[in-house]
Amino acid sequence: MNDVARRAGVGVGTVSRVVNHSSSVTPETRARVEHAIDELGFRRNEIARSLRPGQAPKTIGMVAGDLTNPFYATVVKGAIAAAARQGYAVVIAMADEDPEAERLAIRGLLARGVAGLLLVPDKGDHGYMDQRGEGMGVPTVMVDRPASGVTRDVVLFDNEAAGRIATEHLLMHGHTRIGVLVAPSHYTTGWRLRGFRNAMRGAGQRVDDALVLRLREGSSQSAEEGCRRLLARADAPSALFTTTSFLTLGALRAMRSVPVHPALVGFDDFPYAELLPTPITVVAGDAEDLGWTAATRLLRRIEEHDLPVARLMLPVTLRERGSGEAAPSVDLATTR
Amino acid sequence: MNDVARRAGVGVGTVSRVVNHSSSVTPETRARVEHAIDELGFRRNEIARSLRPGQAPKTIGMVAGDLTNPFYATVVKGAIAAAARQGYAVVIAMADEDPEAERLAIRGLLARGVAGLLLVPDKGDHGYMDQRGEGMGVPTVMVDRPASGVTRDVVLFDNEAAGRIATEHLLMHGHTRIGVLVAPSHYTTGWRLRGFRNAMRGAGQRVDDALVLRLREGSSQSAEEGCRRLLARADAPSALFTTTSFLTLGALRAMRSVPVHPALVGFDDFPYAELLPTPITVVAGDAEDLGWTAATRLLRRIEEHDLPVARLMLPVTLRERGSGEAAPSVDLATTR
Repeated sequence: MNDVARRAGVGVGTVSRVVNHSSSVTPETRARVEHAIDELGFRRNEIARSLRPGQAPKTIGMVAGDLTNPFYATVVKGAIAAAARQGYAVVIAMADEDPEAERLAIRGLLARGVAGLLLVPDKGDHGYMDQRGEGMGVPTVMVDRPASGVTRDVVLFDNEAAGRIATEHLLMHGHTRIGVLVAPSHYTTGWRLRGFRNAMRGAGQRVDDALVLRLREGSSQSAEEGCRRLLARADAPSALFTTTSFLTLGALRAMRSVPVHPALVGFDDFPYAELLPTPITVVAGDAEDLGWTAATRLLRRIEEHDLPVARLMLPVTLRERGSGEAAPSVDLATTR
Repeated sequence: MNDVARRAGVGVGTVSRVVNHSSSVTPETRARVEHAIDELGFRRNEIARSLRPGQAPKTIGMVAGDLTNPFYATVVKGAIAAAARQGYAVVIAMADEDPEAERLAIRGLLARGVAGLLLVPDKGDHGYMDQRGEGMGVPTVMVDRPASGVTRDVVLFDNEAAGRIATEHLLMHGHTRIGVLVAPSHYTTGWRLRGFRNAMRGAGQRVDDALVLRLREGSSQSAEEGCRRLLARADAPSALFTTTSFLTLGALRAMRSVPVHPALVGFDDFPYAELLPTPITVVAGDAEDLGWTAATRLLRRIEEHDLPVARLMLPVTLRERGSGEAAPSVDLATTR
């Protein structure tokens, strides 16, 4: 700003008038200022901004999981769309379920002066966020699950209902030996498992813990290996409930190696679910709405710091497509 | 900064020493300064930053397409990972193939003072980027395709080879009546189509233009409708080449309504390609590498403004899985 004025041999006020397209500047002066701006390589927007220090550019930060998981990509899309509506940009950082990476990502975003944070929290303790320089006082909304150790707004799906709906659906089709693939002890998959147990108990069914597979990793590969072991048992389950879409993919891969396919209900939808050999029945919420609702809550909290902390729960629905509607002992492999 | 000093009743230098963990501050003074910081709701990082005005936070902007397209999500993932390696954060804006939205997104990013831009450009003219305040002089790398009207670095796949490889593969399996689904006149799909024509010409085959379907929209739905018309023809093609993964999805949906499925080679891979009734053969490049390479080039250009403009072309490969290896007239629907 001062550099431009100095270079053009005019006052700062004149530069301001040129940048703001004021008519009270002679063409010669305008040309000289614009030339100075060119030479200094400034962008007009930056200058306009420096003239109005009260109007900082509005940016929020978001720490999300692996974007190649369509779930996270869709949540991010919803958040960006909601933020853009109110003039906010979104800086995206990926932590991918590593607590230290997450903490560094948060620090990096705070150092960039974001007005607020959207965080898909890792399962680790987030007590550090109540320390100075680590997120304290920064408006924050947790996405998909609460963070342990801190109290913040959270927007999430009704995961207990998801597990219950999936299980009741399989029970209704005659399945009582239901295998469950559970991703590493996350809050969300824990509640989905609880929904499974509640539905089984409600139907007077015993849960065979040998069929509840707690995976050490949330990858498709880990699910494929685990599921293959499950299906190789003499008393293999007649149906599966997979608690994330990556696990659904792994289970589908494992099922290629057995002649009789179990029924399957997955949690979370995915683009090609309808086109698989047997289209996949899922229980899912609207991931774009999750991101949208979280960003909208954050922008409101940025303006009203003293809003009470909220827990916003979005519904899930069953999408029947075929894989979850087969009775036990029917040989799916030969009927498709 | 001054506010903290005033509130704590100390000098600015003392605040600086507290924030930077200098040992030359008494515990009492430290407590007073920290209390003032708490009260004022500052974040330590912001203060640390204001103390070192030369070290601006490093951020690049990226304008990408719809993140629910796994291709864009994967490109963004690669870009974020490469940027993070060098201490840069990425602000993501979505333009979704709307020229005006793209221009606004670029302006918004520039107003936030990003050090450089990654842009998946719309097909419209980008001459405006050579105007002051619209991107002039800001280090920019185009991703996936060049932008018309401006000269910038571009990182892209070898799209002509993609079309050629897909077509030669179908020709090799005996197909000469090949239907092509082409997304709206983008640079990339145009080159893929050119590759198709070159392969046909190379094999001495005539192209039936009635089988080259230029869609008005790039959506799966538009592809499904178009493909259904194509397959209903008396002289329907025995094979299809779909030039994007959204079009592949639409073609697969359309194929459910016909008894005899054409062979299919798609451009671009997708997570469930292996699990479909007939696993899908695709020609694809590494989307994560595309994002990674573009961000790496941008960071280099940020440091060396006078690098010559480069065109970095990444290879594509054929992934044979079944859908592209059937001969004409074999009834795929009954053999799967």
